Amino acid sequence: MKTLAYAAQKAGAELATFSIDRREPSETDVVIDILFCGICHSDLHQLKDEWGGATFPMVPGHEIVGRVKHAGKAVTKFKTGDLVGVGCMVDSCRACRQCDEHHEQFCEKGCAYTYNGTAMDRTTRTFGGYSKQVVVTESFVLRIPDSLDPASAAPLLCAGVTTWSPLRQWGCKKGDRVGVVGLGGLGHMAVKLAASMGAEVTMLSTSTAKEADARRLGATEFAVTRDPNTFKRLAGTFDLLIDTISAEHDVAAHLGLLKPFGTMVLLGVPPKPSAIGAFSLIGGNKRLVGSLIGGIKETQEMLDYCGKHGIVSDVEVIAMKDANASFERMLKGDVRYRFVLDLSTLT
Amino acid sequence: MKTLAYAAQKAGAELATFSIDRREPSETDVVIDILFCGICHSDLHQLKDEWGGATFPMVPGHEIVGRVKHAGKAVTKFKTGDLVGVGCMVDSCRACRQCDEHHEQFCEKGCAYTYNGTAMDRTTRTFGGYSKQVVVTESFVLRIPDSLDPASAAPLLCAGVTTWSPLRQWGCKKGDRVGVVGLGGLGHMAVKLAASMGAEVTMLSTSTAKEADARRLGATEFAVTRDPNTFKRLAGTFDLLIDTISAEHDVAAHLGLLKPFGTMVLLGVPPKPSAIGAFSLIGGNKRLVGSLIGGIKETQEMLDYCGKHGIVSDVEVIAMKDANASFERMLKGDVRYRFVLDLSTLT
Repeated sequence: MKTLAYAAQKAGAELATFSIDRREPSETDVVIDILFCGICHSDLHQLKDEWGGATFPMVPGHEIVGRVKHAGKAVTKFKTGDLVGVGCMVDSCRACRQCDEHHEQFCEKGCAYTYNGTAMDRTTRTFGGYSKQVVVTESFVLRIPDSLDPASAAPLLCAGVTTWSPLRQWGCKKGDRVGVVGLGGLGHMAVKLAASMGAEVTMLSTSTAKEADARRLGATEFAVTRDPNTFKRLAGTFDLLIDTISAEHDVAAHLGLLKPFGTMVLLGVPPKPSAIGAFSLIGGNKRLVGSLIGGIKETQEMLDYCGKHGIVSDVEVIAMKDANASFERMLKGDVRYRFVLDLSTLT
Repeated sequence: MKTLAYAAQKAGAELATFSIDRREPSETDVVIDILFCGICHSDLHQLKDEWGGATFPMVPGHEIVGRVKHAGKAVTKFKTGDLVGVGCMVDSCRACRQCDEHHEQFCEKGCAYTYNGTAMDRTTRTFGGYSKQVVVTESFVLRIPDSLDPASAAPLLCAGVTTWSPLRQWGCKKGDRVGVVGLGGLGHMAVKLAASMGAEVTMLSTSTAKEADARRLGATEFAVTRDPNTFKRLAGTFDLLIDTISAEHDVAAHLGLLKPFGTMVLLGVPPKPSAIGAFSLIGGNKRLVGSLIGGIKETQEMLDYCGKHGIVSDVEVIAMKDANASFERMLKGDVRYRFVLDLSTLT
């Protein structure tokens, strides 16, 4: 079935309207009319082929919220009209140990990414949410609580679960001291989620520009990382650091901010490796770890939690015609804190 | 009270007999006649002042086994004649959160190291186990199971707990695939302990020279890290890696050997920081962590476990007069796997 989309025809090209083919829905498929799709920084990396292996035409978008248009007759969890979401994955092998343990993002056969990838047949290309409709197997469709604003909920599908997952993995709880490094799309969700779990959140930012915002989002402390005194003043004070920075920065210095047995989670991928001295980890049994999005089960848990606690992303809803310009603003950090495309403007 | 010891008078000097003062025992002190003391690689680092801040004269040694000569009248756990041990610490503040949680090595006031440090008065210098007697507060004295050979048990006080602690922290259990990187004093204990816990242990060594030994110690697989094919063949196969190497090596490459959610524990401190790319941790939610010795409670648990399972170190017992020469052999890796000084030869 033909679907209108916004696509780039080659690496670095601007997005423009383009018609793509979606598969005919099977009995276990859900056809979704897309309402909103968040713009993730990784969309831009992929459009520019900065990570290698990009395939074109490319339709980005993995923070999808829409309504069920049609549910195949074997579909049990969804019916026409339901508010649903699709995140970074649309399928996986569903048989390996990682899939069994609900870590589909690490599927041993390689999961099917929502765009710039292939379905599990390893042939059919996948196209993302900068489009009017998507067809997804029921198991990879998420329920969006009706209490949440659909546009503001869209970034939960990637930025939400990417920050939720490490907070849960590392046992964030009431009274923990959590530092969030970098206040962008990921960082603002990390602050909201950690604060909602009862943690005392410190925002670590390069400048004071976002201090008021950080406090509004739930941070009780604010520290400037360009001030070397910050690393002395806050040495040994955090149980958990959530590092959302993709630019070059001194990861090793941040390890000094952890308490013994504290954990620093890397979510961003800086362009160069970081120099990590063994003693910065050994002195205090510290942990430097990574975390990649989250599995489908934990994504649903996050969405249900956000519904219960009224947590969504701070978004700026834009029309499709402004998508290309939004990338420029995103690169300058001029968004608080996520652009979301309104698919009703794609005609 | 005067005690005969082996001391270095300045950085890099040879050890020679020297008389030190031990404090008069208090009511809570235990006076120990030292039988054996292991030679830890860190003794040599400290003697050469390679880590900075060394104070001289220095009497090294923190793998001490001896018999109680005298127990103060408030001492409840020990009596004259008991076989006991002393590890890397002889005191801590016993009041901070870290001490409360049995992590005295991270005492917020700084623990009292067994040598090259100070008592908690921060004035009285500490001298280690290359000596005839030591006076230690009861709380930092360990019980050595009578079933263990005293000389072979000495290295458990440092090498034993240093490998035991991360295996326990990271939940080593039956069927886990554990890789031990480097077969020396730490590595041979890691192999024995992990195998005793039911793990399938692979020895990762720079050459095949120690393969037979590794298998005798309990490894079921052996791989050569100088062969690049090893990193392809074993990619994604380990739950846990225990890295005991203090020489420069490619830590990031080893992360590729971990399964998703796998952990690599650094125990050695290479001379230079390692270059760690964020994606080597993010791809698979991997963990790069450090571990420093262990607390008193877990040291006792390790000793009791070793008593029950008959686990000791492989040692070469030497006379005091051979101590200086043993350092040369240690630097060449010519020891399987720990030198232990026989204090009866110190006269």
